[in-house]
Amino acid sequence: MSSAALDLGHLEELAGQLSPGALVTDPDVVASYSFDKALFCPIGTARGLIRAQSVDDVVATMRFATAHRIPVVAQGTRTGLSGAANAVDGCLLLNVAKMNEIVSIDPVEQTCRVQPGVINLDLKNALAEHGLSYPPDPGSVAISTIGGNVATNAGGMCCVKYGVTKDYVRGMTVVLADGTVTRLGRSTAKGVAGLDLASLFVGSEGTLGVIVEVTLGLRAAMPPAITAVGIFGDTESAGHTVAEYMASGAAPSMLELIDGPSLKVINAYGDFGLPEDAGALLLVQSNAPGQAAVAELDAFEQVAGRNGSLEVHVSDDPADSELLVAARRAVGPALERHAHLIGGGELIDDVCIPRSRLGEFFTRLRTIDARYDVEILTAGHAGDGNMHPTVIFDARDEAMSAQAREAFAEIMQLGLDLGGTITGEHGVGFLKRDWLRRELDEGAALMHARIRAALDPLGILNPGKVFA
Amino acid sequence: MSSAALDLGHLEELAGQLSPGALVTDPDVVASYSFDKALFCPIGTARGLIRAQSVDDVVATMRFATAHRIPVVAQGTRTGLSGAANAVDGCLLLNVAKMNEIVSIDPVEQTCRVQPGVINLDLKNALAEHGLSYPPDPGSVAISTIGGNVATNAGGMCCVKYGVTKDYVRGMTVVLADGTVTRLGRSTAKGVAGLDLASLFVGSEGTLGVIVEVTLGLRAAMPPAITAVGIFGDTESAGHTVAEYMASGAAPSMLELIDGPSLKVINAYGDFGLPEDAGALLLVQSNAPGQAAVAELDAFEQVAGRNGSLEVHVSDDPADSELLVAARRAVGPALERHAHLIGGGELIDDVCIPRSRLGEFFTRLRTIDARYDVEILTAGHAGDGNMHPTVIFDARDEAMSAQAREAFAEIMQLGLDLGGTITGEHGVGFLKRDWLRRELDEGAALMHARIRAALDPLGILNPGKVFA
Repeated sequence: MSSAALDLGHLEELAGQLSPGALVTDPDVVASYSFDKALFCPIGTARGLIRAQSVDDVVATMRFATAHRIPVVAQGTRTGLSGAANAVDGCLLLNVAKMNEIVSIDPVEQTCRVQPGVINLDLKNALAEHGLSYPPDPGSVAISTIGGNVATNAGGMCCVKYGVTKDYVRGMTVVLADGTVTRLGRSTAKGVAGLDLASLFVGSEGTLGVIVEVTLGLRAAMPPAITAVGIFGDTESAGHTVAEYMASGAAPSMLELIDGPSLKVINAYGDFGLPEDAGALLLVQSNAPGQAAVAELDAFEQVAGRNGSLEVHVSDDPADSELLVAARRAVGPALERHAHLIGGGELIDDVCIPRSRLGEFFTRLRTIDARYDVEILTAGHAGDGNMHPTVIFDARDEAMSAQAREAFAEIMQLGLDLGGTITGEHGVGFLKRDWLRRELDEGAALMHARIRAALDPLGILNPGKVFA
Repeated sequence: MSSAALDLGHLEELAGQLSPGALVTDPDVVASYSFDKALFCPIGTARGLIRAQSVDDVVATMRFATAHRIPVVAQGTRTGLSGAANAVDGCLLLNVAKMNEIVSIDPVEQTCRVQPGVINLDLKNALAEHGLSYPPDPGSVAISTIGGNVATNAGGMCCVKYGVTKDYVRGMTVVLADGTVTRLGRSTAKGVAGLDLASLFVGSEGTLGVIVEVTLGLRAAMPPAITAVGIFGDTESAGHTVAEYMASGAAPSMLELIDGPSLKVINAYGDFGLPEDAGALLLVQSNAPGQAAVAELDAFEQVAGRNGSLEVHVSDDPADSELLVAARRAVGPALERHAHLIGGGELIDDVCIPRSRLGEFFTRLRTIDARYDVEILTAGHAGDGNMHPTVIFDARDEAMSAQAREAFAEIMQLGLDLGGTITGEHGVGFLKRDWLRRELDEGAALMHARIRAALDPLGILNPGKVFA
């Protein structure tokens, strides 16, 4: 790669083509933009940072990068958990967080067009004024961008009823490796004109091009939900409850699991009053119309009872619901704080397995936990079989760190063994690239390489991520 | 292309690698498998027909085709409307209709695995025994295959609430051009491990590989629906009703439009008793739980009234509903019969536009109708803005046929002018390949060519279809 030969003189040439101040070369600032929230992912030394303010800035950057064969790492607010937004040596960081305009909202067609830097929650708030909603709600909903959500196909708690980011992406504008601007997909409710290139970009983690605008399909505002909490002596019975309840045809708008150790950590983080001696808690919501919601939660209570629940509470008090959902949302920061207290090590896994295997999953997870000198706390989107066992350890201790990585890898293997995937919603990035190769067969791996080479022949788009 | 040099001796070599009797060279039989239901698409002369009975048959065919650089056209029951399944000169027709086993149904995970030749309706019936449903319901539901539905991303009347085929495809097994068998996608509810290659294959019309197994996500059995019919003096007021009703946040499980001329043709086809002097009819269903369904249809009645409906009937009598849905489903055969009576010419268009433009669409459609000496009858999935204006003409008359093709093209241009697409659910095939190039910008067209070349370097997969 000729990038080593590039000097600051060339970068000044780029600066002249960008919005004033868009190019940043101050090493401290560049370094502060060089990583996302993943641990154990190499952080390269970037050549510079472009804080793009327009599609033109992105085009100029890509043309320059192609001309000089410089790697480009696109990024938003860098809340990802797999290192996909980390700098690689000699790269340009192409940050689109400042491109944060909601271009239009169409209440009749129930669509919106947004720039990639719009924060998910900001969009939700803007849509609420029009009686509309955009369901995908990753844990990072308040801080992550739509562009990043699309690039990783983000999920969240809504997915069990409302699907993932991909289900809302109708079309997008992207800038290809050579600076070509192109429109993919459609703006209408349906469309089959040619290959579904928009879906190909969803979850592509910056390896195929840079997303500069997204057209999203929306829904009417979510109806209010009522909430049930089921308390269980162990995670297995909670897992069996989930499998049986979902198999019954229930369509809960939320079905989350929190294990016992996580409940304690959440209580330590905030005054949530969760039951500390439980083995697991299931949080269920239904937003079905009228009495259908009550029936749906009654059915949950019955299924939970058949599977040995200790108690089930149903409440239609919005304050109760809000507190419980807030407790679930607190898992992220609570575990982060817990990890901080014992040495900073936190590896968040993200396997997704068939719901029928949840019981077995928890049993085998316990044997992994027992074999390693680390803590494993688990919460997750149980209704989808998407679990986040999180390995907590003292990152200052090398032996502990090695154990943590081994436990983390064993959890991915467990996911594969049970017919699942190594990542349900966090993506591959750097963290799981070697494991992606285990999940894909030879043919699929070859297709990945060929498509990437076809669209990025110089290999400048987020090199080394997703595929080794 | 070296195919001209291939003689029957080579085909005998292939026959030895296939299931007994799978290779058919009888010219009459081969010719009878050489076209789908589209008009005005060239029908080439195939070299032979493979009625594959197994993945091994498909692999052997693709290896042979790669070795001898022979084009391969994959096909199911050839119910497509765009010529995608038509033979090209010198090709092998690779028919997978006999691979029609439902491999497994998993009621807990709500998934099934099926071979590509399974008929959509057969799958629906099998799932019903498990309390499950697979919503996509193209007009061809009783005769088309899941493989074909996936290859064209088929839609239907369910889509307004339940989405299209793509929304149900979790994973698939495909055979690539060189005979490589590979598994794409996932079987779990969520998954973001690598590029979404399964979605790339949905709607690819046999240009990227041959689908040999599909894993579908399912839903619980559909709840019963109640039905409303709105009668309008003209299509514009029906169109405005659709736009306003959908913008209100309604989630009907069906919202279909039939224009006046189509109503007459349907009555002539069967004893449906539809109002013949109406300008348009809207057929609406709601399957929301309990009173919510009644409220949803009451809201429809109000919106229709505000937009000048002549009358609205609401009924919860299943017999009424069945008759009305049967009438809607009769549009296809009724128009086919009508075309047959006046000379056999029938060109079914498939534009999808923003719902807010439906009124304008109908006004401009009327001017197209007036300029040409053909009949244009329109029905469609109004809730999605997906309309099927059908040009009926005397196909024995060359001048009429030319006029019909011009009118057909003008309808596609109208779709594009209104911010829509040339095809909402029927696909591109041969019929619309020149129009696809108008819909795509330069960058997207180049990406199509590059991806196709990357996955099929010899260009043997359905050449000349989709892309010129």
